Amino acid sequence: TQQFRITLLPGDGIGPEIMNVAVDVLKVVGKKFDIEFHFQEVPIGGAAIDLTGEPLPQESLEKCRNSDAVLLAAIGGYKWDSLPPAQRPEGGLLALRAGLELFANLRPAKIIPELIDASTLKKEVVEGVDILVVRELTGGIYFGKPRGVFATETGEKRGVNTMVYTESEINRIGRVAFEAAQKRSGKLCSVDKANVLDVSQLWRESMTKLAAEYPSVELSHLYVDNAAMQLLRAPSQFDTIVTGNLFGDILSDAAAMLTGSIGMLPSASLGATGPGVFEPVHGSAPDIAGQDKANPLAQVLSAAMMLRYGLNQPTAADHIEKSVSLILQRGLRTGDIMSPGMKQLGCRAIGDALIQA
Amino acid sequence: TQQFRITLLPGDGIGPEIMNVAVDVLKVVGKKFDIEFHFQEVPIGGAAIDLTGEPLPQESLEKCRNSDAVLLAAIGGYKWDSLPPAQRPEGGLLALRAGLELFANLRPAKIIPELIDASTLKKEVVEGVDILVVRELTGGIYFGKPRGVFATETGEKRGVNTMVYTESEINRIGRVAFEAAQKRSGKLCSVDKANVLDVSQLWRESMTKLAAEYPSVELSHLYVDNAAMQLLRAPSQFDTIVTGNLFGDILSDAAAMLTGSIGMLPSASLGATGPGVFEPVHGSAPDIAGQDKANPLAQVLSAAMMLRYGLNQPTAADHIEKSVSLILQRGLRTGDIMSPGMKQLGCRAIGDALIQA
Ligand SMILES: CC(C)[C@H](C(=O)O)[C@@H](O)C(=O)O
Ligand SMILES: CC(C)[C@H](C(=O)O)[C@@H](O)C(=O)O
Repeated sequence: TQQFRITLLPGDGIGPEIMNVAVDVLKVVGKKFDIEFHFQEVPIGGAAIDLTGEPLPQESLEKCRNSDAVLLAAIGGYKWDSLPPAQRPEGGLLALRAGLELFANLRPAKIIPELIDASTLKKEVVEGVDILVVRELTGGIYFGKPRGVFATETGEKRGVNTMVYTESEINRIGRVAFEAAQKRSGKLCSVDKANVLDVSQLWRESMTKLAAEYPSVELSHLYVDNAAMQLLRAPSQFDTIVTGNLFGDILSDAAAMLTGSIGMLPSASLGATGPGVFEPVHGSAPDIAGQDKANPLAQVLSAAMMLRYGLNQPTAADHIEKSVSLILQRGLRTGDIMSPGMKQLGCRAIGDALIQA
Repeated sequence: TQQFRITLLPGDGIGPEIMNVAVDVLKVVGKKFDIEFHFQEVPIGGAAIDLTGEPLPQESLEKCRNSDAVLLAAIGGYKWDSLPPAQRPEGGLLALRAGLELFANLRPAKIIPELIDASTLKKEVVEGVDILVVRELTGGIYFGKPRGVFATETGEKRGVNTMVYTESEINRIGRVAFEAAQKRSGKLCSVDKANVLDVSQLWRESMTKLAAEYPSVELSHLYVDNAAMQLLRAPSQFDTIVTGNLFGDILSDAAAMLTGSIGMLPSASLGATGPGVFEPVHGSAPDIAGQDKANPLAQVLSAAMMLRYGLNQPTAADHIEKSVSLILQRGLRTGDIMSPGMKQLGCRAIGDALIQA
């Protein structure tokens, strides 16, 4: 029997209800594949602010650090929106990424054939789309210094942030991306703004150098504005995309929205060593929290990503992914992905159907 | 007779051929509305590099400064792609923006009913879309200092750019946007990344304060990642969008691509005083340059924007815009917007049809 310590961060809004489903699924899968999970739950985000005043208490971070993988649901809500930025739920997420040095964020955006009609793009445009965005997650303008709002000599305020990357930070995320592209179709597109930004020029130069180590990967470059256009114009031209923290934030969300069903998309955030964090792309949806309406499938698929990338259990991961396909093929849907002729179920009932499958 | 001095910057690629069409159209419209245009042509971009070694020679900038409006076509091409960034054609564009203090970039993205099928989005999603992106153009990370690639103590390279906005820079672009929104539907959406960036917090705070001066405008805020999603999910929720230089670069291109026909989109860049610059959103398309295949309509519509926003000649602008609609209604198309049953014409022939109309 393999044993794994999993830290659960249910967070806010629909977080707890979708986490429950994922945990139940993991338990069933664990039995089937002889894996024993030891779960511990710790607070993050708004839930943590309410309990301790901080969005990521030191104890939560320590417990995450001392586990084999972290499963996160979602954070944030209207309730905490008026707090000063540093004390808001999002701060907990940024602190978790920094604290665990999760420099590589993997965001797949894959069209699920059963749900292709949910896309706002024409069927022939999104058919077969299968993009992996590899986003740098602990550098760039998110963490660069100096930062802050300062008074100028004339007394007016001046806001400053710094976008910064070193060669080693670029190489580190570059390697993750080249390796991912190698396992996929061998096409890697690096996105930057090298016609304007110095940091992008270093990014492009470093990626180009790195390409020599991966002869089987075909590297191309796009400016971020053009990449945003191309994602809309002809998304199937992309396989793996690598980019910095800010551009990755924007483009991975755009790529996710191409599928039309962000309630279905998982993500993984990985460091060099230590546990990874696995979480759905969607938010905490405070408007439907506690109503058993949430779609738990992105959370369940995040658990599958955890098995695959975090715990090296690809067979168990496959099994979960196949079960999700199966219930979709059977026409079971939550409200967010409902379409005529399908059967609409709540969060819990979809979970039960999954466990049966 | 009104007299205007117009500086023409044909630039590179398809620039000269589409500029010719626009100038011919302006001449005809000038006769009709009793306006006399004095045109002077100066080099920018690759053409200027070839002539003088610089993408924006001082003389070109001076001539632009001493005119009533500047009509720009397109710059750039493969030929200059291997030059160091500061000496590339794009540098001429950035120098022109800075030199004329063109802080406000207006980029309309409006669905043209005749061309709605060109969009990759479903008809019901893009029907009626009419977005104006107001992008700050002389500040933010494009011009912030410090910038550069520096050696660290360990000898590795470190790329740095600085995103910076002062309150007065934000207020200046904010006023342009609030006024534009007032003349349109009264809805303004400010886009930032205030959950992560200090400069965005100042941006949001300043926009919120400014809103008090425009009680008829309804201000909302979105994070840039969410804005990219929403543009794809439900673009008709937007009317006027205001944002910084980098986010505006990305979002205005995404908004443009929603229409499916970027060969049709003009833009205006305006300063507090002095001449504005009017140019198509599309690039220099070096692959089809000189082949009489280019679509000149965005250039012609940029001339209309020049008449409206730069020279205060709304009647003449209307006339051009109506003529463009007319030839589209008659089924005339260039290759980029061709569809079955329509009549395909070259650049010159479309221009002639327009002049007839
Ligand atoms: C909540 C926010 C800080 C975060 C980010 O910008 O990284 C989110 O948008 C994401 O992409 O995970
Ligand atoms: C060519 C480039 C410098 C420019 C920009 O980034 O502003 C272009 O993308 C634009 O939007 O006009």
